[in-house]
Amino acid sequence: MKRILNLLAIILMTTSVMMAQDKKSFTLEDLMPGGNNYFNLQPNNLHGLAWWGDLCVKPEMREVKTINPKNGEESVLFTLEAMNKALEEAGIKPVRALYTLSYPWADKTEVQLPKSQGYAVYNWVTGAVTTRNDLPKEPYANVDLNPVSGHIAYTIGNNFYVNGHQVTDEPEGVLCGQSVHRNEFGINGGIFWSPKGNLVAFYRMDQSMVTDYPQVNTSTRIATLEPDKYPMAGMTSHKVTVGVYNPATKETIYLKAGDPTDRYFTNVSWSPDEKSIYMFELNRDQNHAQLMKYNAQTGEKEGMLYEEKHPKYVEPQNPILFLPWDENQFILQSQRDGYNHLYVFETTKEGELTHRQLTSGPWIVKGIMGFNEKAKEVIIMSTEISPLQSNAYAVNVKNGKRRLIGEGEGVHRVQLSASGKYVIDNYTAHNVARNISLLSTQKGKPVNLLSATHPMEAYNMPEITLGTIKAADGKTDLYYRLVKPVDFDASKKYPAIIYVYGGPHAQNITDTYNYGVRGWDLYMAQKGYVMLTVDNRGSSNRGLEFENVTHRQLGVEEMKDQMKGVELLKSLGYVDADRIGVHGWSFGGFMTTNLMLTYNDVFKVGVAGGPVIDWKMYEVMYGERYMDTPQDNPEGYKNSDLTQRAGDLKGKLQIIIGANDPVCVPQHSIAFLRACIDAGTHPDYFIYPGDGHNMAGRDRVHLHERITQYFEDYLK
Amino acid sequence: MKRILNLLAIILMTTSVMMAQDKKSFTLEDLMPGGNNYFNLQPNNLHGLAWWGDLCVKPEMREVKTINPKNGEESVLFTLEAMNKALEEAGIKPVRALYTLSYPWADKTEVQLPKSQGYAVYNWVTGAVTTRNDLPKEPYANVDLNPVSGHIAYTIGNNFYVNGHQVTDEPEGVLCGQSVHRNEFGINGGIFWSPKGNLVAFYRMDQSMVTDYPQVNTSTRIATLEPDKYPMAGMTSHKVTVGVYNPATKETIYLKAGDPTDRYFTNVSWSPDEKSIYMFELNRDQNHAQLMKYNAQTGEKEGMLYEEKHPKYVEPQNPILFLPWDENQFILQSQRDGYNHLYVFETTKEGELTHRQLTSGPWIVKGIMGFNEKAKEVIIMSTEISPLQSNAYAVNVKNGKRRLIGEGEGVHRVQLSASGKYVIDNYTAHNVARNISLLSTQKGKPVNLLSATHPMEAYNMPEITLGTIKAADGKTDLYYRLVKPVDFDASKKYPAIIYVYGGPHAQNITDTYNYGVRGWDLYMAQKGYVMLTVDNRGSSNRGLEFENVTHRQLGVEEMKDQMKGVELLKSLGYVDADRIGVHGWSFGGFMTTNLMLTYNDVFKVGVAGGPVIDWKMYEVMYGERYMDTPQDNPEGYKNSDLTQRAGDLKGKLQIIIGANDPVCVPQHSIAFLRACIDAGTHPDYFIYPGDGHNMAGRDRVHLHERITQYFEDYLK
Repeated sequence: MKRILNLLAIILMTTSVMMAQDKKSFTLEDLMPGGNNYFNLQPNNLHGLAWWGDLCVKPEMREVKTINPKNGEESVLFTLEAMNKALEEAGIKPVRALYTLSYPWADKTEVQLPKSQGYAVYNWVTGAVTTRNDLPKEPYANVDLNPVSGHIAYTIGNNFYVNGHQVTDEPEGVLCGQSVHRNEFGINGGIFWSPKGNLVAFYRMDQSMVTDYPQVNTSTRIATLEPDKYPMAGMTSHKVTVGVYNPATKETIYLKAGDPTDRYFTNVSWSPDEKSIYMFELNRDQNHAQLMKYNAQTGEKEGMLYEEKHPKYVEPQNPILFLPWDENQFILQSQRDGYNHLYVFETTKEGELTHRQLTSGPWIVKGIMGFNEKAKEVIIMSTEISPLQSNAYAVNVKNGKRRLIGEGEGVHRVQLSASGKYVIDNYTAHNVARNISLLSTQKGKPVNLLSATHPMEAYNMPEITLGTIKAADGKTDLYYRLVKPVDFDASKKYPAIIYVYGGPHAQNITDTYNYGVRGWDLYMAQKGYVMLTVDNRGSSNRGLEFENVTHRQLGVEEMKDQMKGVELLKSLGYVDADRIGVHGWSFGGFMTTNLMLTYNDVFKVGVAGGPVIDWKMYEVMYGERYMDTPQDNPEGYKNSDLTQRAGDLKGKLQIIIGANDPVCVPQHSIAFLRACIDAGTHPDYFIYPGDGHNMAGRDRVHLHERITQYFEDYLK
Repeated sequence: MKRILNLLAIILMTTSVMMAQDKKSFTLEDLMPGGNNYFNLQPNNLHGLAWWGDLCVKPEMREVKTINPKNGEESVLFTLEAMNKALEEAGIKPVRALYTLSYPWADKTEVQLPKSQGYAVYNWVTGAVTTRNDLPKEPYANVDLNPVSGHIAYTIGNNFYVNGHQVTDEPEGVLCGQSVHRNEFGINGGIFWSPKGNLVAFYRMDQSMVTDYPQVNTSTRIATLEPDKYPMAGMTSHKVTVGVYNPATKETIYLKAGDPTDRYFTNVSWSPDEKSIYMFELNRDQNHAQLMKYNAQTGEKEGMLYEEKHPKYVEPQNPILFLPWDENQFILQSQRDGYNHLYVFETTKEGELTHRQLTSGPWIVKGIMGFNEKAKEVIIMSTEISPLQSNAYAVNVKNGKRRLIGEGEGVHRVQLSASGKYVIDNYTAHNVARNISLLSTQKGKPVNLLSATHPMEAYNMPEITLGTIKAADGKTDLYYRLVKPVDFDASKKYPAIIYVYGGPHAQNITDTYNYGVRGWDLYMAQKGYVMLTVDNRGSSNRGLEFENVTHRQLGVEEMKDQMKGVELLKSLGYVDADRIGVHGWSFGGFMTTNLMLTYNDVFKVGVAGGPVIDWKMYEVMYGERYMDTPQDNPEGYKNSDLTQRAGDLKGKLQIIIGANDPVCVPQHSIAFLRACIDAGTHPDYFIYPGDGHNMAGRDRVHLHERITQYFEDYLK
């Protein structure tokens, strides 16, 4: 009997082992964006979902359907065939796919086509095709078509154009209609249409006084210079002003904001009546922000509505938003109480501006998705349930009462319908590959559109766990994600790699599918590595204090927290403490290099991608927020300048950069190599010619082959 | 008895082993230029030996002695103390050492001080100090003081000056008084004084039409552009003209040589009467050279004296030289019969120019050292005894009879006395560390000044042997140098590394000390590698045909010959054929990369330094001589373009460059990396920021640590 049981055990074990063996192994082609099989291993998704009024639009291969969020009823709106026939008759290039159309007019049976079709408009009832405006013949960029007025704004070269009219005529060093301040302060463009599209505000940035960084293009017959205006910390910065153009009069005025030297103008927005423009104005020290109001006709300053100071820094990232039902009230976002929250500002009948806090608590408002005008609610995303999550809430603007929309787990992306009554809710959670539903923002049954299957079921998956450890301050909880080797055997000793970012504005661990595990983590787990990531203090979505503990001393506290991760690894019993590696990119490259130098007895192998080496070579906007200027904070800069400690390198460290990195310029890495050579230490180095701050496509696969090989050569 | 013998054998063996163990091991500090102990391991030398007339001048620490070459008698000429006292009284900075003085006036008791002392002249009999001319206060370069006239020529920025007078006034793209044609065709400067110093010829090079290569200096606060005019093969080249300045009249004329587009003007020389200037003129194809004569006063062309064509290329590298005893005769060097030899040209009384060959045979005249006027002899260096050697000969200009001067072994460097009767002969041979003697160029007993001891006797030396193998053509002998591992054991299997250069104008194996073994060879032999170097066809000192077999197909024949070296390694019995590596720099970097790609089953590991990757990125003068233009030889360029074969990389290949290499610009390596990334192969890469084509000083030590580690990591 005992024999038989033993035999059975063997059979069962063998079966189990065989089952694991039957599962597929990952290649980098499966796991890397750019890999041949990458998309097959991503959870299914529905592309191009949109709202037409309160009807959900669902594009398919050959037709566009609507889905009624009340009951899930589907009906065909129009077919590709019919639309393309109309387009061809109108002499417009036909469309191949229906996924990139937009439906900005809730009251019209019209769909707007993408830029490649000249923003043509197709009326699926009448079959008529019209174009709202003409794109220029010259190479253009930054196109912004206002769907209300039909005016079209864009840039050609460094100048700004509207409806074929050249608005600005500036020399090459002055950019108009483009993003400014290197995309900091929430800026991602330079064109701001008024609500009805009668006026357009635009950025003008004079960077003629900014030093060129000499980038070199080596793909030409003989290498050519492609200089890039790059203001380094403490050096002369650009000057920004804001213009307002009136397409009717073809006149331009500039907001009279005073001398723009060493100032940041951000979050440009309009009053609903188009008479006023608002923006936040920030000093170069970034510790004093003022919300200013300007007359959009004259450019005159009409007053300061609000100001905020902080001994470390303030960081306005969102424009104010007027309530659709009351032009006297707007919502402002601020993290002045330590967490990003909503404040309602109201101009009283007496003309006085008052304000009150609408949301509060130790969590973050991540964004405003819009309003439910009827219910007088604002729809927000927040981390109220967990810092790892992002959930939609309807917030009553009067009393601040909140109501969760959808499931209370995971990270949601929602699109609000025209009335604000419905959302398309697209979410993933650690055990949910993807779920897409139409939800009422008030109550009602969800209409499920997709429940994605687990895409990696055929593969031999490692165990992925989430947990918390205490930060180096002894009190703050830090989240970590731990990936055990595939076919884990607790009696073995495994090498471990910490993947780190560690800088502000980023979070590596979220309640997304598999806790947001990286493809490379899975790949390395398969090769027998324990993979750990810890979101240290300084990273995002945990509040201001959690973030700004790093002020004037980037790297110091972050590294202490990462060493708590090392303690965790050592405590596991199955990690070989002599074989701990580290890898990170950008700020994570800074962290990797810093860890390799600072804890050179702990880390044996590191790969630092696109690293910051010396913050005085980083740009003004991001760098000075956290480090102040080199003139003001010489100690902080010196202590974080890794060239000063090049002689401390003991392990194997490979630096990898895009040879044309415009974000973290090659000078960082090159200066570090020079310092190491002078100090007699031996880092390794590789470049991706023609690439910028990150590698995409096939280069990303190649990069991870390279990173993997380095750990295989020296850590395994 | 037998027992005792055995015991004895053991004792002897042990002793021998212990003796080997007692010997020191090399470090890179011992073997690398730039290493802390490098100079201690170099053979002794005597610095600053010179001629004052026919007396040898021998500087010591505190006094300058003369040595009579007839009998070796020494006497003190002057002391440092006395000279410095006189200098101080004259307000001139004192001299620290006596090794850099010169004695251009055989008829005066005067010594000329170096540039740092303003070329002051000290008369050791009268104690008088004079200065012949003044150096400018602005930063100057290319100083050339004529010791006969005392006129001083130099450059400031891009312009040419004589005696404080600005001779040229050209914009920045035009260089005057500097070397041209990238130092090819024997050019190494741009100032040519007439024999008595009454006139000075100078180069003027307009390179405003040449494309800039964007070199970047990363050592500044923010990286700065330092563009370099770099004419790439097939692209627009610079234009050179030759001016003649008369310091007396302050007038300048230019030689009327016609349109300088795509022409090379080289080997400028003067007639003894200063009335005529001669130079070789070469077409861009470099297959047609003409020796031209110009009137130095008017610049008018006075005739073509000689011309030479070759279906592959001609390469005039030496100016003509007039006989001191007959202004109607000059010597011209040409390799038109396949070897560089001397030809005597004579203008007959009838005014006809005739010429005759003075030397001939399957060997090379390496240079003319001067004349013995009395004996009517020209003193040359030649390879007559062996291509590995360089020996001095006195050649009778009338009948061509030759007489060896000094020992018939080794590589000699000689300095000829004023009359040509004596030489300072400094030579090394494979078993001679260094020997310095004063020799009569006719007959007489040598006066030995130094017989250096073997400097590495305390070290555990490997066995270094010389041999020949047949080239891939099956008939030509190639020389090789083989270094066995230290403590060699024939029963073991060792990894082997081929060190390769392989390009024209270089020879790695000579009959110098230890056959010219490289320090790194010794270091690697100590680490257990077999080191082999083969001078393949295409390298120098073996005649034109040996060299020009590579024409229009650089790399092809050279690699075939290197594979004969591989055959040799495999035949040795103690080389592990699976562990063969290759290393080379510049042309040797091209060879290394090419071998790694072409014979990717043979070579496991390679380190390619400053490699040419694609000859169309190399400069016009050197590149087109061997490859013609990309327009004329598209197949040859394509076949040797290593980016085309980046996908063939199988072994480990590391590319190392000076990040500011102005010779073989970084674009070569960067293009190769891009091609490898695109092809999915994995080279390694390192740069030395701020360095040029070669690493010097401490960087050279660091570099060889790096190269060594790469072979240790992947070949051992």
